[in-house]
Amino acid sequence: MAEKRPFDILNAALDNPVLIRLKGGLEVRGKMASYDVHMNLVLEGAEQLESGEVKRKIGTLLLRGDNIVFIAPSL
Amino acid sequence: MAEKRPFDILNAALDNPVLIRLKGGLEVRGKMASYDVHMNLVLEGAEQLESGEVKRKIGTLLLRGDNIVFIAPSL
Amino acid sequence: MAEKRPFDILNAALDNPVLIRLKGGLEVRGKMASYDVHMNLVLEGAEQLESGEVKRKIGTLLLRGDNIVFIAPSL
Amino acid sequence: MAEKRPFDILNAALDNPVLIRLKGGLEVRGKMASYDVHMNLVLEGAEQLESGEVKRKIGTLLLRGDNIVFIAPSL
Amino acid sequence: MAEKRPFDILNAALDNPVLIRLKGGLEVRGKMASYDVHMNLVLEGAEQLESGEVKRKIGTLLLRGDNIVFIAPSL
Amino acid sequence: MAEKRPFDILNAALDNPVLIRLKGGLEVRGKMASYDVHMNLVLEGAEQLESGEVKRKIGTLLLRGDNIVFIAPSL
Amino acid sequence: MAEKRPFDILNAALDNPVLIRLKGGLEVRGKMASYDVHMNLVLEGAEQLESGEVKRKIGTLLLRGDNIVFIAPSL
Repeated sequence: MAEKRPFDILNAALDNPVLIRLKGGLEVRGKMASYDVHMNLVLEGAEQLESGEVKRKIGTLLLRGDNIVFIAPSL
Repeated sequence: MAEKRPFDILNAALDNPVLIRLKGGLEVRGKMASYDVHMNLVLEGAEQLESGEVKRKIGTLLLRGDNIVFIAPSL
Repeated sequence: MAEKRPFDILNAALDNPVLIRLKGGLEVRGKMASYDVHMNLVLEGAEQLESGEVKRKIGTLLLRGDNIVFIAPSL
Repeated sequence: MAEKRPFDILNAALDNPVLIRLKGGLEVRGKMASYDVHMNLVLEGAEQLESGEVKRKIGTLLLRGDNIVFIAPSL
Repeated sequence: MAEKRPFDILNAALDNPVLIRLKGGLEVRGKMASYDVHMNLVLEGAEQLESGEVKRKIGTLLLRGDNIVFIAPSL
Repeated sequence: MAEKRPFDILNAALDNPVLIRLKGGLEVRGKMASYDVHMNLVLEGAEQLESGEVKRKIGTLLLRGDNIVFIAPSL
Repeated sequence: MAEKRPFDILNAALDNPVLIRLKGGLEVRGKMASYDVHMNLVLEGAEQLESGEVKRKIGTLLLRGDNIVFIAPSL
């Protein structure tokens, strides 16, 4: 079984929920709709979280890749 | 139906209201008038927000792309 | 009527007053005298603002583009 | 015996547990599943740590390389 | 009369006093002796300022361009 | 006697103890096992320091070069 | 008499004492032994300063250029 390269994780996460942590500590959760080579991402049905609670419903969201700390497909 | 790539979201948002979050936590809202490949954006009728309230009316606004954290077309 | 691209806003602002917000929150206001492709700007008659009040008169000012958060031609 | 170059350490850590420290002080621990030339990493069974204690179980995790401060394979 | 481009301001400031604001808020003042394409600058007779007062006399000073916020030739 | 260029210092430090200061103030000490052109470093037997005291034993450590402030081979 | 370009200052400072201010406010002083095109510097007999007082003797020191705010050869 081949190991998954970092961008394979993005591809596998398409249409699935992901949790994203951004620089500065902000976290958002949503269904990953697309990404590009800069790791810019589009989320659908996105929510901004605070201490794990939903702070704000955002809907469609375009995230700049250079602000991303990590992407967790399983949360 | 094809998925929307990150820059497709920008294109679809033209002439529509967007909420933008900037590094440092500043948020602005306005009608997206244009963008370029660096994600530099022009907003019309822009307002600076604080805790969701309008703090200042700015009007036309040129935002540098490298300060943008996220762009939400639905807010 | 064609939409204005981000650098068209800079061009249209030449010889007109602009408000500039810099990283760290500093704001300056002045007449935009010139710009280059890095968004380095020259302002004439520039003033440093604090909470909207003039804190210091600076006169001619060269601003590095990579410190700019936004440029508002209408304020 | 040849010295190990920095990326040899990443390669040797594949399928082994690593502790990663990120900018801002966040630390995560997990099994390293893959990496790329930007030092983007995939961890499996990742946990977010606080003062050495598990704060949150994250599972699969894609970390952007430009946020990494250090990678410790032996912790 | 042609407008002055950003680097024309640097050229015109040669051998003249300038005030420089750096990232983090530090300000220095001195006679601009030279500059290069990265906006690295040499000041002669430089002084570090605090709240407009001289805090420290530095003499010759090489400033890295990427730390500069603005350059004011008229202060 | 020829002066030592910056990367000569890295080469001379191979297999010798070094103290490294990172952005944010973190300091680590260990035997330098290797480096690359980005100044990514591998330390063996690394320890994280706090006010000069050992705070944590880390063992093998891969440090990203872009977080390094300075490298002191003699401490 | 020709003006000195920024890197001429580095060259003239070779084997002479310099004061270096780093991002974050740290200052070090030592004899400049070498530099490269990235402004990475080697100091000999370096000391870390705090409020102008010697806080720690460091000896040989390799400083990454991208952390440097200014270099003062005359202090």
